[in-house]
Amino acid sequence: MTPVASVPADLDQWLTAHQGDAVDELFAFLRIPSVSARSEHAGDCRTAAEWLAARLSHAGFTTEIMDTPGHPVVLGEWRGAGPDAPTLLVYGHYDVQPAEPLELWTSPAFEPEVRDGRIYARGSVDDKGQLYLHVKALEAHLAVRGTLPVNVIVLAEGEEEVGSVNLEAFLEQHRERLRCDGVVISDSTMFAPGVPSILSSLRGLAYVQIDVRGSTSDLHSGMYGGAVVNPAMALARILSTLHDDNGRVAIAGFYDAVQAWPESVRAQMRTLPFNEEHFRDEVGAPALGGERGYSVLERLWTRPTCEVNGLLSGYTGEGAKTVLPAVAMAKVSFRLVPDQNPTVVEQLVAEHVKRVTPPGVTATVTPLHGGRPWRSELGGPLHEAGVSALHAAFGTAPVITGEGGSIPVVGDFERILGAPVLLMGFGLPGENAHAPDEWISAENFRQGMRAAATLLDQYGAAKSR
Amino acid sequence: MTPVASVPADLDQWLTAHQGDAVDELFAFLRIPSVSARSEHAGDCRTAAEWLAARLSHAGFTTEIMDTPGHPVVLGEWRGAGPDAPTLLVYGHYDVQPAEPLELWTSPAFEPEVRDGRIYARGSVDDKGQLYLHVKALEAHLAVRGTLPVNVIVLAEGEEEVGSVNLEAFLEQHRERLRCDGVVISDSTMFAPGVPSILSSLRGLAYVQIDVRGSTSDLHSGMYGGAVVNPAMALARILSTLHDDNGRVAIAGFYDAVQAWPESVRAQMRTLPFNEEHFRDEVGAPALGGERGYSVLERLWTRPTCEVNGLLSGYTGEGAKTVLPAVAMAKVSFRLVPDQNPTVVEQLVAEHVKRVTPPGVTATVTPLHGGRPWRSELGGPLHEAGVSALHAAFGTAPVITGEGGSIPVVGDFERILGAPVLLMGFGLPGENAHAPDEWISAENFRQGMRAAATLLDQYGAAKSR
Repeated sequence: MTPVASVPADLDQWLTAHQGDAVDELFAFLRIPSVSARSEHAGDCRTAAEWLAARLSHAGFTTEIMDTPGHPVVLGEWRGAGPDAPTLLVYGHYDVQPAEPLELWTSPAFEPEVRDGRIYARGSVDDKGQLYLHVKALEAHLAVRGTLPVNVIVLAEGEEEVGSVNLEAFLEQHRERLRCDGVVISDSTMFAPGVPSILSSLRGLAYVQIDVRGSTSDLHSGMYGGAVVNPAMALARILSTLHDDNGRVAIAGFYDAVQAWPESVRAQMRTLPFNEEHFRDEVGAPALGGERGYSVLERLWTRPTCEVNGLLSGYTGEGAKTVLPAVAMAKVSFRLVPDQNPTVVEQLVAEHVKRVTPPGVTATVTPLHGGRPWRSELGGPLHEAGVSALHAAFGTAPVITGEGGSIPVVGDFERILGAPVLLMGFGLPGENAHAPDEWISAENFRQGMRAAATLLDQYGAAKSR
Repeated sequence: MTPVASVPADLDQWLTAHQGDAVDELFAFLRIPSVSARSEHAGDCRTAAEWLAARLSHAGFTTEIMDTPGHPVVLGEWRGAGPDAPTLLVYGHYDVQPAEPLELWTSPAFEPEVRDGRIYARGSVDDKGQLYLHVKALEAHLAVRGTLPVNVIVLAEGEEEVGSVNLEAFLEQHRERLRCDGVVISDSTMFAPGVPSILSSLRGLAYVQIDVRGSTSDLHSGMYGGAVVNPAMALARILSTLHDDNGRVAIAGFYDAVQAWPESVRAQMRTLPFNEEHFRDEVGAPALGGERGYSVLERLWTRPTCEVNGLLSGYTGEGAKTVLPAVAMAKVSFRLVPDQNPTVVEQLVAEHVKRVTPPGVTATVTPLHGGRPWRSELGGPLHEAGVSALHAAFGTAPVITGEGGSIPVVGDFERILGAPVLLMGFGLPGENAHAPDEWISAENFRQGMRAAATLLDQYGAAKSR
């Protein structure tokens, strides 16, 4: 095991002394309504970028605001550790989700307020608070010691909430300049309060639309019903073949590329304080479901799925209309786990649908969106530095968690920059990341700065060992 | 077999002499935009009722325009045949479907025009033309002979196109006044040009909505997918159990009340000039479908069905949204045949859905609409008079047809007035009854008057035999 470090006393002292400033500065950052999805906020996005660049300059970084076809990227660089020292890239985003519906906020979305130890504001946890704790950790090092143990690049984009549409090209274009040995991202949640967490897996996605067509136009169900194949019924029958009775996806070849998880991680997952009844209560369903033979956390983090995301056919208004629909549509998506490939899964789905479509209708499968699954190596200097830093800050070893959704940029960093990614998040369950009353725990913001500061020392030490 | 009559020469001569007047009068009737579904046409509906009452008065009938909670009923009575003679009730409707989309009409919907032997206008075949041919037949009798061979009640309602919502109560309320020995309705189609037809069966309907609910609100499919039951998928699986692999409805007890058809009618059905490939072409589907072991006409006319009329769940817009829906809805209807009962079928469906709903979701079945199936006796004085009259007018014996849809008033007449109903229609396939460019064959309008006039003689003779 990695030896447990403690938060370096000099940094801890500085961070404690400047805790009030850190919160004040974060409030200033949060007051800028940098909503990337709304063109009327384009100016606010630039203001946020400029604000962030100024804070990095103040800390001692060389900064540049780099234009993209969308909102700009803030690039901060400190390369004083020299060419032999490792380089760490800190990624985050300064843009936020729209705040609507505004009337559901207890305090205004862009007027930060602390209540019960939580900092409430749009962007508090996603991701301004989690990005800025890194900036303060860097500032602490440079203020106290005049140097950093590793070279550091800070890359903050302004389009994460609209799908990071220009980031991949940006990484490709500036591949040399962004060359690094590791990437740290704080844009995720801890498993529970007081339980520091390293997020080690993300599911991928293959999202398709299935369109079933029967007659050339809608028919009267009285005049034609019984003699033609009903595309809505055909679609239901097609969808019903996608799972077997054990909740497994029944598409030939679907599990071929699925890798088993290390028994050690499965064992740790079983020790996590997860209450299935509370989860069921939160969901509000009469019972949970899913693939037989796996716990709820395993189903969410380690197993692929097939879900219907949408259905549409015929008459959907009030009352009765006796139409025999000409077409029926389903949106169907598959959450993927390593090493499933979305393109391969789309092909398997298309072949399956072709095989089970009854005569009398035609079915087409159109891929709409895909993303690869990701799993970290659970080892190496950056991972070990993260474990130590979190242990030091929180006084307890971090747990390894998974995430049912996707963060596409993670794969981009690994693929384009060839560097491992550490996902070290300080959010908490119930943080309302994309909802009204978004918050970050003030305590986690504080511990996050301590962990981020410690990470730099640990990573520098690990790389030079 | 009933002896074949010919159209009485005196009536035939009068009708031929007044053919031009009949068409002119029908045009005047068709110019009144009596769209029952649109409140702005309420005045036009009353105008149509008044126009019709005036024509009946002119023919020699006592007429009354009787208010209902909706559009009025036109009642015409001629009781000069005396209490011992039978009474025939002629039913029709003076209201029409909305004409929209107007831009798809070749000539304006309410400006009748003859092209290629067809009278084009909204209401030409449904039902003003088919109602007015009876009025002219009655006028012929009274003009030529000063009398009618039977007592006649003409009942024309103005709400057939909005579900005859007030007719049942009207029949109940005026049961004594409307007492009759038979009802004739011309509001249906002939099997083909030159093939006079008696419509002898109508399917009933049981229409339900199935609502499946999982979580209390929509969930993120990444964060929850795989651990909760997806209601859209559950709905698909429920729907997939409604048929077996032979196209039979797989609900326990569904066929218990289904009566076999007389072999003679099935044999006649097989001789009808029905081209399945033309039907498939018209539908535009790659192949036909339905219950194994039955011809297309048998499936449409004699067999019950189960159809999905609508599906709705989750995200149905463009592109991909990774929602795990909280609810999913299907509209499902069953066409029924004698002696299936819609209430019983609704119960069987609810029990079936309850049995096949997986844990993790709840499903509710809400009845939305029901109607009983109907089949005529294929015998008795009115039926035989109809066969003779059609044979006389068209020079060929009528065929017995069925109809996949419902005409709810037929059951009401039989149940409330205790009188058999003869459905003797003069429409033709492709007549666009509820669509732009509605038409009635000018030849069928003419033959319809001849048949209706002959029917009165035949019915009078049959009843007095």
